[in-house]
Formats: sequence, structure tokens, C-alpha cells
Amino acid sequence: MNWNLNLPTGTRDKLFREAEAAHKLENTVLDFFKERDFMRIETPIIEFEDVFSSETKETHYRFFDEKGRLLALRPDMTLPIGRVVHTTGVHLPLKLSYSGKIFRANAGFSGDRNEETQAGIELIGYGSKKAEIECLLSGIRLMQTLAIPDFQMELGHAGFYELLLQKLHLSGQAENEFRSLLQNKSLSEMQAFSEQFEPKWARFLCALPRLFGEVHPTILEAKALLPDEELNAPLDEILEMATIIQQVEPNASLLVDIGLVQELRYYTGLIFRGFASFAADYFLSGGRYDRLSEHFGQTKVPAVGLALHLDSILAVKERHGLTEKFSKKEILIHYDVTELKMAERYYAEHPESVLSFLDSERESIAFARKWDIGTVVSFQKEGLKVIFERGERV
Amino acid sequence: MNWNLNLPTGTRDKLFREAEAAHKLENTVLDFFKERDFMRIETPIIEFEDVFSSETKETHYRFFDEKGRLLALRPDMTLPIGRVVHTTGVHLPLKLSYSGKIFRANAGFSGDRNEETQAGIELIGYGSKKAEIECLLSGIRLMQTLAIPDFQMELGHAGFYELLLQKLHLSGQAENEFRSLLQNKSLSEMQAFSEQFEPKWARFLCALPRLFGEVHPTILEAKALLPDEELNAPLDEILEMATIIQQVEPNASLLVDIGLVQELRYYTGLIFRGFASFAADYFLSGGRYDRLSEHFGQTKVPAVGLALHLDSILAVKERHGLTEKFSKKEILIHYDVTELKMAERYYAEHPESVLSFLDSERESIAFARKWDIGTVVSFQKEGLKVIFERGERV
Repeated sequence: MNWNLNLPTGTRDKLFREAEAAHKLENTVLDFFKERDFMRIETPIIEFEDVFSSETKETHYRFFDEKGRLLALRPDMTLPIGRVVHTTGVHLPLKLSYSGKIFRANAGFSGDRNEETQAGIELIGYGSKKAEIECLLSGIRLMQTLAIPDFQMELGHAGFYELLLQKLHLSGQAENEFRSLLQNKSLSEMQAFSEQFEPKWARFLCALPRLFGEVHPTILEAKALLPDEELNAPLDEILEMATIIQQVEPNASLLVDIGLVQELRYYTGLIFRGFASFAADYFLSGGRYDRLSEHFGQTKVPAVGLALHLDSILAVKERHGLTEKFSKKEILIHYDVTELKMAERYYAEHPESVLSFLDSERESIAFARKWDIGTVVSFQKEGLKVIFERGERV
Repeated sequence: MNWNLNLPTGTRDKLFREAEAAHKLENTVLDFFKERDFMRIETPIIEFEDVFSSETKETHYRFFDEKGRLLALRPDMTLPIGRVVHTTGVHLPLKLSYSGKIFRANAGFSGDRNEETQAGIELIGYGSKKAEIECLLSGIRLMQTLAIPDFQMELGHAGFYELLLQKLHLSGQAENEFRSLLQNKSLSEMQAFSEQFEPKWARFLCALPRLFGEVHPTILEAKALLPDEELNAPLDEILEMATIIQQVEPNASLLVDIGLVQELRYYTGLIFRGFASFAADYFLSGGRYDRLSEHFGQTKVPAVGLALHLDSILAVKERHGLTEKFSKKEILIHYDVTELKMAERYYAEHPESVLSFLDSERESIAFARKWDIGTVVSFQKEGLKVIFERGERV
């Protein structure tokens, strides 16, 4: 084994201050959701692959159990929570919160995280737009709580994309191509693609990759270009939602992306993503997904979710210098094992002190010098002695 | 897919109160370790299989990455932390804490948890017995903090077992048999096994499976039967440690098991396990492991660790009725979307209230009846109205 190449693709260790900050971030988010009366749910990391079969399988870590059944590491938390809600007898509606690791088997060159921590909420059994409002307000306020600078919430609509597919009769390979052109906002390629459609559609498709930005002007521009009346409804829904949110959170920065498509295909209505300066990509996402229940053999159940990519948020905080330093220790407590009880009492009474688990006073003094601890005290049979002060041996 | 058999072997969902209690337990444990100046470390769940190659592989979940390299879900946290410490340039000694999921691919009939949460500490680079003391005291005090009834800490010594193997010239298949006889405390089978050795050894081996219980009498009994002087040293070490712990924590219940062998083979010195009433098995374990560094190509580095099986501890707390109930909500806040800001203010000012995300007053009242919420208030253009009080529609 070459221990220099010692971690699988897309994984990394978090040490000390970074690990502490990650843990604190997760708790801040969970406390926020608890405060808003969400109930926690925890599902296993290992699931049967079938739970995720509506999504592309290429990026799952998959393996067999002792009976030869195909398992997968969850690539997402919404599908496992859907499994619980739609295959057990829990009563709806429900407001759930979660946090945990998710996994995607990205290839080495992508630079993506193959293992990351997500936290979020799911409002299941709620058809009201109040559920979308709750997700958007929670996202915006959490970013205020976390002091993320320049946070922007971008709105879109999965129903708009679905309508486009219907009107353009796109499916299979052609849909995949269209989807990827939208995701990459490829203006020139979209132009080539659009030539197969009649002029009013071609004109609209060519404009689509640049129809993003401030809510009102962008929606007005889109509406002026719309080749079909039916496409108005999802745009009106975005506009109404932006208006509601801005009434309650007037300082929130809201944007729209008419051509927004989410990576996961289960969304049906309003969708959203959150960005900030210094963030490589969006670190908050979600939306309405009223048809996920059908995957589990149930009738349509309205639902809305919000997911936070905690590792990305931590990276933003780090880059802005927003994570805490460790509190510095000033006193190292050396002790003889017979004096443990006294040393423990001193430790409990002095928050700026730390116990030494080294055997000799010499080792404890060397430790204090190395880590810049100002004072070493020693508990011996004769009592407490100061055996080192910064800069000199006492 | 039969959605009735919807979870892989040995995994389960945690819902609502149980999930909340699990999260709180993990935080209590981590806060305790932070208070004692341990620094958090977080390693990936996915590792190269080689990290775990010193342990038996039969029980690992294994799979290939995109380059055909063998990966595994970590069955343990000590080995990944060993990888970090011994393959990067971190300075020793270190006091580390962790929490996270571990995985064992147990067969369906075993009833074991295939995915569970562990938390713990590792003191790496510490050869002093102060490191064992810290682990034992931390374990005992954490169980006090968690109010676990009838907690018992059992001490043993991996060096005692290693000495036995040397003296008896046991290795390979014979060692595995001996190990399993000790783990199962099989008196009759141990008798049959011991017949191959000279009488003083046979007599000792036959006694070994019942040499557990109170520290002083058990060690005295063992010493009277010892077939070789060299076996005294590890027993003296157990006795000394028990004496130190009892001086500082006189109410702690300490036991000894002379024939104790840990499941994982990397231990070299004092080892320990923690039990309680209503616990199916031990839920705390650890010990000294001075040779783990050799697995990563390093010279011997002294180290001691303590691991807590949080799911088992949670089960003990549940059986004793020690986990909290949810605080009951007394007021459901219905609102018209135009009045969201007022509703939000009321919600923030009334901790016993909760927002309704349902569209109509009728739905909100039905929700309150179902979940036994005493009052429903409604924010409309005209202002705040009480629209339901327990037992009657207002």
C-alpha cells in the first residue's frame, strides 16, 4: 500500500478546528430546524438500490449483501425519507428534519465531493405554498444566522421545464441533450439545437440560457418572448413567491433562473438554489416534489424540501474567516498518579488549564514549550508547585 | 420491490423522539470530550480496504471504485484515525475525539447492528498509564452524566492473552479455537481443549473461563493458579489500575475478566468493557494498542482508546425511560399568506405555539384536533381571531 495516496477519490479528513467547526455548523442548523418545530428523522446510510432507482445509477456506490441483494450508499436524503413516509403507517402531514452523509461515486477528475454532509427539512403532505415559503425563509434566515456574506436565493420552476418538454415533444436522448444545454447555459449549442423548431420556439430557446437574474425584469423579459400562453402559470408562481418572501425578508437577495433544472428529477413545482461569494457552486437547494410518492407505489402526495450542503457552507465560512479559533490553554497540569484527585479538582476549577498525560515533569515542560502553554504546575506528594513559566524553568 | 422488506439486514430507521434522543446523546458525549480538551477528528466513511487489512475481512462491506480499487465501509474508527496519525505529518502526542457511523456486514440471523453510531477518544503517543486512567474515568463519568443505572466497568489485559499464546505455542487455527473458547466462556469445551497441555497448564485453562468478577478476589484466585511467573505482571497492572480508579471514583463498579479478549486484535495492554442492566452486550470498550502504528509502516507508537456504542446506550436509556418527551404545543397558528409577518412575530413570541402550513382554517382545526393542540388562532386581514378551543369550535 502506498500510504501517500491514502484516501478514496473525493474524500478527505477533517482535523481539529475544521472538524469542530463542521460539527458546530451541523448543530446550528439542526437547532434552527428544531426551534421551528421540525422532527428529526435518521435513516441508514445503506439502502436497497431500488430506493434510488428513479435516479441515474451511474453515480451510486453499489455492492451486494450476504444474500446477493443490491445495496447502495444513499446519494440523497429525500428518497430514503420518502421510503419511510410512504411504506410505513406514519400519519401525514409531517415536518421532518435530518442531517447525515450522502455519497456520489464521481470520477477522480471532477473535483466533486464523493462523501458530504447534508442537512435539511422535508414538509410532506403539504400542498400549500406555505410549505415553499417555510423552506425559502428557513434557508434565508439560516444564512443570516451563519453570517454568510452575499447570500443569493435563486428561484425556478420544474413545471416550466416539464411544460417545455411536452410542447416540444422532447423525450429520451433529445431530452437529455436539452437538459444538459440548459444546465450548462450553452448559448451557441442551444442555437444549433433550437433550429429544428418553428421560429417562435427557436427564438425562445435561444434566449433561455440567458434568462436569469433579477426577478421582475427577467420574468418580464421571459413573458415577452413566451411562445405559448400555458408557460405563464409557472412564471406567475415564481413572481408571487418572490413577492411574499420580499415582504417578510426585504433584505434577502432573490434571483430567478427561468431555465433552472435540478440534478435530481423528482421535482414538480417551484425549485430553488442558494449561492454566495467564494462558493464554487450552489450549497442550498430544494423545491416541490409532489410525485415522489408514486415511486413507492402511492398516489400523489404533495411535498417540499430544502437541503443544505454543509461541507460547501463550511468552506465559504472558512474562506471568509468566520470559523472560530480554539481557546488557548494557559496552564498545563502535571501530576503524580497518587495525586490524581487533586489534579482533577484543579482542572475542573480552572477552565484555562489542561491535564498532561505524560509521565515525567521533563516531558510535560517540553510539551508546554512546544505548544506555547505559559505555565506548568505539578501535583506531587508535597503539594502543588509551579515547575515552568513561559521563557524560563522555575 | 416488496416495500414491506424495505431495509437492509441489521439497519433501521430512527423516527422523531428516538432520532432526537440519539442526536442529543451524541452531543452530550462530544461535549464531555471537548470539555476535557480532546480535539475532534472526522475521517471518511469510505476507505481503501487496506486500512483494515489487519482485521478479519469477512464482515466488511466492500466494493470497487471507478479505477477498480477495493474500498470498504469503515468497521471501526481507530484504524482510520491511525491512518491519519501515522501517514500524515501531525505532531504527537494527540488527544482526539470522534463520532460517526461504523459498518459490519453481519448475517441476517445474528441480530447485530450492521450500521451503528460510535463515539470515542484516542490518546496517541501516550505511553503513560495516565492515558488508560483518562479513558476509564471518562467512561465512568460519562455513564454518570447519562444516568445509566448499574454501570459496570470490566478490566482485562491483552498482554495476558498474548503471553498465554506464547507459553502454549498457539497460533493459526489452534489460536482461533482458543480465542473462541475464551470469548464464549465454554467450560466443557475448554476442558477438552486443555487436555493437550501439561497438568498445571490444563488446570489453569480449565479455570480461566470462570475467572471473572470482583477485582481483588478474582485476581487472588488467578494468581494462586498461575502456571508461570511471567503471567503475574499483567494481573498486577489490572490491580494497580483498579486501585487508582477506585481512589478517584469510589462509587464506580469495577470488575475483572482474566480471560477477556477483544474482538479487534490490535490491543496490546490493559483492555476494558462497560455493561449495564438491560443491555444485551457491552456498549463501551477500549484499551491500549501500542502496535497499531506498525500496520502503517511506522515504529511502535503507544496509544489508548475508548469507544462508546451509542445505539446500545440509547437502547439502555429508552428501556429505563430516561429519554425526554417532546414538549407539547398548545397553540396552532393559522394564517393568511398576506399576514405571514404577523404570524411569524406571534410564533417567535410564543414558544408553546407552532405554525400551520395548511391552506384553510378547516384543515388547521382538523390538524389541531388530531394532534390534541388546545387552541387554533388565525391571522387574517381583520387581525387575530381564536377559531378553535379544545372541545369546541369557537
